[in-house]
Amino acid sequence: MTLNPCDTAFIDHLHGLIGPRAFREVAPRYLEEPRGTWSGVAGAVVAPADVTEVSAVMQAANAARVGIVPYGGGTGLVGGQIMPDGPAPLLLSLERMTAVRRVDPAENVAVVEAGVILEDIHRAAEAAHRLFPLSLAAKGSARIGGNLATNAGGVNVLRYGNARDLCLGLEVVLADGRIWNGLTRLRKDNTGYDLRNLMIGSEGTLGVITAAALKLFPIPAGQGTALAVVPSPRAALDLLSLARDHVGEAVSAFELMSGEGLRFLEETLPQIRRPFDPAPDWLVLIDLGLPSGLDPSAAFEAIFEQTFERDLVSDALIAQNTAQAAEFWEVREQIPEANRLIGSVSSHDISLPLSNVPDYISRASEVIADMGPFRINCFGHLGDGNLHFNVFPPKGAPVAEWRGHTKAVKQALHDLVHEMEGSVSAEHGIGRLKTDDLERYAQPVKLEMMRAVKAALDPAGILNPGAVLKGG
Amino acid sequence: MTLNPCDTAFIDHLHGLIGPRAFREVAPRYLEEPRGTWSGVAGAVVAPADVTEVSAVMQAANAARVGIVPYGGGTGLVGGQIMPDGPAPLLLSLERMTAVRRVDPAENVAVVEAGVILEDIHRAAEAAHRLFPLSLAAKGSARIGGNLATNAGGVNVLRYGNARDLCLGLEVVLADGRIWNGLTRLRKDNTGYDLRNLMIGSEGTLGVITAAALKLFPIPAGQGTALAVVPSPRAALDLLSLARDHVGEAVSAFELMSGEGLRFLEETLPQIRRPFDPAPDWLVLIDLGLPSGLDPSAAFEAIFEQTFERDLVSDALIAQNTAQAAEFWEVREQIPEANRLIGSVSSHDISLPLSNVPDYISRASEVIADMGPFRINCFGHLGDGNLHFNVFPPKGAPVAEWRGHTKAVKQALHDLVHEMEGSVSAEHGIGRLKTDDLERYAQPVKLEMMRAVKAALDPAGILNPGAVLKGG
Repeated sequence: MTLNPCDTAFIDHLHGLIGPRAFREVAPRYLEEPRGTWSGVAGAVVAPADVTEVSAVMQAANAARVGIVPYGGGTGLVGGQIMPDGPAPLLLSLERMTAVRRVDPAENVAVVEAGVILEDIHRAAEAAHRLFPLSLAAKGSARIGGNLATNAGGVNVLRYGNARDLCLGLEVVLADGRIWNGLTRLRKDNTGYDLRNLMIGSEGTLGVITAAALKLFPIPAGQGTALAVVPSPRAALDLLSLARDHVGEAVSAFELMSGEGLRFLEETLPQIRRPFDPAPDWLVLIDLGLPSGLDPSAAFEAIFEQTFERDLVSDALIAQNTAQAAEFWEVREQIPEANRLIGSVSSHDISLPLSNVPDYISRASEVIADMGPFRINCFGHLGDGNLHFNVFPPKGAPVAEWRGHTKAVKQALHDLVHEMEGSVSAEHGIGRLKTDDLERYAQPVKLEMMRAVKAALDPAGILNPGAVLKGG
Repeated sequence: MTLNPCDTAFIDHLHGLIGPRAFREVAPRYLEEPRGTWSGVAGAVVAPADVTEVSAVMQAANAARVGIVPYGGGTGLVGGQIMPDGPAPLLLSLERMTAVRRVDPAENVAVVEAGVILEDIHRAAEAAHRLFPLSLAAKGSARIGGNLATNAGGVNVLRYGNARDLCLGLEVVLADGRIWNGLTRLRKDNTGYDLRNLMIGSEGTLGVITAAALKLFPIPAGQGTALAVVPSPRAALDLLSLARDHVGEAVSAFELMSGEGLRFLEETLPQIRRPFDPAPDWLVLIDLGLPSGLDPSAAFEAIFEQTFERDLVSDALIAQNTAQAAEFWEVREQIPEANRLIGSVSSHDISLPLSNVPDYISRASEVIADMGPFRINCFGHLGDGNLHFNVFPPKGAPVAEWRGHTKAVKQALHDLVHEMEGSVSAEHGIGRLKTDDLERYAQPVKLEMMRAVKAALDPAGILNPGAVLKGG
């Protein structure tokens, strides 16, 4: 099915349907993505005021066969919000739909519009003495509609789950403008198919999320952060297991960093305080969130006492206050910035069954060593089996000279992930960057089911064309 | 589309496709359901040995346009496993697929075939010092495939979620026999649409689940159980809120019982020990599962100290050992049996936004009082907003004389649920019992989306015909 461009005739038509304030300049920020790799096209940018305007826009686009690219905060890393070519689409931004409609601490529920910035939800929850645990580096600009559309992950997945697990209900506008009001606040509802989760993670290809009911949580009474030097990723996993035996789900984050990552920080962001000098080979950052009656420092000490005995941890620092905890987190959170400054040959967002992670790291490191004198920065959400296994040129070498290796490096690492029962997109989604990977690695039956569902819900194929499914 | 009956010609055809051991007598137990309200029809019963045989059966049924009724433990309460009339379907039982393929305590994962009995999964997990938290009254006969197909709830949803939340991956046979191997053990996987959750809760109408990868959890170091007398459901909710402020997610069960329910027990099962005599108006059963370092009795005492001060709790018992905890649970778990012995005019499995629960209970009680001298036993998973609000004849009156009121009672209660933003099926599903309710209360757009998905994945309509979607 060929789509039509969003041309002046169509834009004129839209002017008759929605208020003049919805029309936005097609500014560069709508057409660029965070890593600056691609740029997109758009015939127009509209930012509807409410779900009725979204519905009117979609109905018109569906009738005219004009592609729609839904747009949240623009922080996605796989090009889901960027259409690089083809008939110019209409970019539909949720940026004006920013109402926090309800924060109910007794129900542990917040109801928000899709355009609310993630960090604003954190603030609204905190004001009601509650926690909304979805958190990621782009929290200051990512919008919740995009977080849900991509099933975002982040640093608290171990304890609280992905975006999917934090959502109770959705309001969605379908391709043809019909509004599905699934904005329930229920914890249990078995009345029919799980359309909510079908929309979550569909990256704007099955519908446009316009509002969501989200789960809130009690703020853990005692919070603590520690850094632990471990001899290997396997030791890190044993440490995780031991920590969970002690405090159960109270382990809220368990992040792995490598010596190379720490050296990247020294090289590019020397102002960041080094917790250990020289940098150890492997470092783990642990967050605990404990019920009242348990002291985080005491819990960490009890855990580390056992791990020292078993040679799982050779050194550890327990944050003595929130400033120090923030300092520890700064190390973890600035690694992506250090990577950006150095420039990667290829970045990967992969996941593996937990027990395969150590083998993957050693086998993948060998594979890359055989391909050239690359540097590897392997870090990530170890507790979830989610690694960012990123490959960089030799020290001092300009990345441009090594970009010719990008494709081969990516394929070698993804092939190994696939062989070891992992996923080539753990938390970032498929977008347009990984449609080839999806076709390469997904079981054909899965692709057939996805295409059948896409055809059923967006028969004209106007929703985020070319994202997730190639030519779909 | 008209389906063909599962006749001798088709059965003969099946004999050429799968081993002779798969064929079962069409015994009454396959055609009855736990409450004994309906009975079903079936042309044959087959119990395939493995996924290949399931695939062969489905491919044949799809080609011959013969309906398939997937069958787990037969414990469903909404007729999802019972086809009362129409062309005799083939009943496809998973009872022979009972392998626990893997229990991995380091990964916190179990991989099981669909026919494994829920309680056997509990045992396998416990043997590896892990917890599989899905638990419900029928755990001794319910099979995990059915639990997943119906997105079962139960007593630990508050802390651990529904069946949906406990599943990482599925193997599913589609209507036409294609096998989707989505049996991943990954915690994070954003490669395409959420087909897993589409299958979970679809009650066998979109595919047949043949195996699943399940989440396991650390066994909480300290477990405790208490009973608390509360003046009202609202006070019970305040108690829940206060308990969660203290111990966070460590509240693993929070069950409401009414004085009427306790009197039902006295009437029908007098051997059950009465925790309070006379029966209080409202009673709450609380389970805590705490990290090491926290004593459950001390935590309960800290909580009750505050609730006594605030008049939220007038009396409480903290179990002093596991035998006493089991005794407390016996009270809760025998209420459905007492209900069965008395005989209900109408039973309901409803959920509401948590803050609407107290108002619902009082308004619904008034509605029923206006309809006649009924007795109400309202109990359930209060922490999830899930009530079993069941209506009984006056004391001593035979239920048969009051069955004429069933329809009106049900509709009045369901209408009120709908008005108050709740669900008429919280944890049991739609099956065939509630297809009319679904049509009455669901937004038409939702039904349209469901029908589109059904047509996309089961175009011939052979999968569990008439369940979930009427005529679908």
